[in-house]
Amino acid sequence: LWRYAELLPLQESDKQLEAPVTLGEGWTPLVRARRLGKTLGLSRLYVKDESANPTQSVKARGMAAAVTRSLHLGTRVVSVAGTGETGTALATYAARAGLEAKVFLPRDTRPAFVKECALLGAEVTLVEGHWSEAVRAAEDRGRPHGWYNATSLAEPYRIEGEKTLGYELAEQLGWQLPDWIVYPTGAGTGVIAIWKAFAELAALGWIDPVRRPHLACVQAAGCAPLVRAFGAGAERAAPWDAPATIASGLRVPTTPGDFLVLRALRESAGAALAVGDTEMVADMKDTGRLEGIGVSPEGGAAVHAVRVLMSQGLIKSADTVIIVATAGVRMALDALQ
Amino acid sequence: LWRYAELLPLQESDKQLEAPVTLGEGWTPLVRARRLGKTLGLSRLYVKDESANPTQSVKARGMAAAVTRSLHLGTRVVSVAGTGETGTALATYAARAGLEAKVFLPRDTRPAFVKECALLGAEVTLVEGHWSEAVRAAEDRGRPHGWYNATSLAEPYRIEGEKTLGYELAEQLGWQLPDWIVYPTGAGTGVIAIWKAFAELAALGWIDPVRRPHLACVQAAGCAPLVRAFGAGAERAAPWDAPATIASGLRVPTTPGDFLVLRALRESAGAALAVGDTEMVADMKDTGRLEGIGVSPEGGAAVHAVRVLMSQGLIKSADTVIIVATAGVRMALDALQ
Repeated sequence: LWRYAELLPLQESDKQLEAPVTLGEGWTPLVRARRLGKTLGLSRLYVKDESANPTQSVKARGMAAAVTRSLHLGTRVVSVAGTGETGTALATYAARAGLEAKVFLPRDTRPAFVKECALLGAEVTLVEGHWSEAVRAAEDRGRPHGWYNATSLAEPYRIEGEKTLGYELAEQLGWQLPDWIVYPTGAGTGVIAIWKAFAELAALGWIDPVRRPHLACVQAAGCAPLVRAFGAGAERAAPWDAPATIASGLRVPTTPGDFLVLRALRESAGAALAVGDTEMVADMKDTGRLEGIGVSPEGGAAVHAVRVLMSQGLIKSADTVIIVATAGVRMALDALQ
Repeated sequence: LWRYAELLPLQESDKQLEAPVTLGEGWTPLVRARRLGKTLGLSRLYVKDESANPTQSVKARGMAAAVTRSLHLGTRVVSVAGTGETGTALATYAARAGLEAKVFLPRDTRPAFVKECALLGAEVTLVEGHWSEAVRAAEDRGRPHGWYNATSLAEPYRIEGEKTLGYELAEQLGWQLPDWIVYPTGAGTGVIAIWKAFAELAALGWIDPVRRPHLACVQAAGCAPLVRAFGAGAERAAPWDAPATIASGLRVPTTPGDFLVLRALRESAGAALAVGDTEMVADMKDTGRLEGIGVSPEGGAAVHAVRVLMSQGLIKSADTVIIVATAGVRMALDALQ
């Protein structure tokens, strides 16, 4: 993603970004999905396969940027509250940078993530409760010591890193943006970031200043605070009680950046919808069987969301549609029967 | 890897390769490993991180090529005998191509691989015994039906795909080859392929025609037929009885391409060495902790092999050394304590 270094505000001055913390993240494949598209009634369906990143998820982009910034600021300890992939991504880039990593995860996080964080040398704290409780624990533990807190929306640089996904989509499509981008949404950094990317590309004159894609935010039926708020026309999303879904990345009941996500969805004349676990798994299987792409439950949710938006007439068969497959399947194989 | 399409003999005529079966494999990061290198006494150590491929392993390269070829030949069914990553890779590219996939795995294969193959729509047969028995089962079942058999060394095109790793190393290093390449070796397609790549690049005049890297073949202490044969000066490797190692990719007791691997090692003035499971795990942890790279046990074995070759004086501290991390860690997290 460092091909876009000039557009990332990570250094103090105008000089070239020195020594980014990198493992080769970004520039992931944009895969044309003809066979899956056919079953959906779409001739121009693409999967943006973020599993090609280090740590097999989109989180690598944001953490590469945030850890680079924290290193330049002179931090020695970085922390994050996450639901799995986020913790792994922080542990990865902290190790790469030679920083100490503290990862706070809900106690019911898949054990494989805890193992992976430990392999990467991170200290993991399992917290009773959900993402929101882990967020509080990370804040409470880190503030007295001045740890760099890389939790979603607690700092601005993860969004800077994640916005490169928007740049890439534009560049990979020849600077013609698609009609729809369907994005699985937990805390919402991805949606905020991609919308920022398009505003910047328009300001630079690299894309049509008016025509923007519709954004669809996809959550789980068992945890859909943004979907509920979008439907109610609200500006903020109330916390979701008792979040429950196999898609751990969507098990995010409170949304600090809710107003930014909801604003982006509305500005884009977009949509927000919730998908059940059974439907996620069914579309993980279709994506695997028809395209050879192993996506996480979040990716399965995005595929199912396309089905729903087609049936509602919002997505049309001539549209160009991007599914953001935010992570690979390997940590979620237990979700399959 | 299709940047090198002109050098892949996959099409009938001289015309441009039409419609390769692709998911964006190849051009994986070559990561400078300064911190790990320092603990080893090396200032120019690199990890070629093959986990950035679809299916998180180097096997994607070979399968992309073999399945492309089989599709052009008009095959409907492709099969493979493997130890895990190979099966997953075949299932992936078969699905992508719309072909039927039959995967034969030893019964003690990690269940996650079986699940992943099933997700990708492949039919999995678990075979009593080890890799060699799975190879026989794949042959026996497929021959009457004319299945395309993508087992290592049963066809030539996987080597064609895997040789692109050698091209990439040369290109990423500015056409200056390194001093040593340390390659975890099961059936040996990787070693054969990289050696072929360098011969081709020399014939094309893209690299020094004389100076070639030393190749180090790394196997497991519990299954090291090539190491034994190399040490004995033999041209063929006798089967290994009762193979046992946590590195499933190295649990390959018979080596159909033994003479090619051994020839490459000797032509390169290289080495062959076996690494114990405990040492593999220790160096998985060092690589994770010091560089933020989660490698499979095979990768851990390669790191440990560098230590041994340093202590033997074969690798010198001024040498440029490449560790081929053939797969990511996610399928082998159970190996960690």
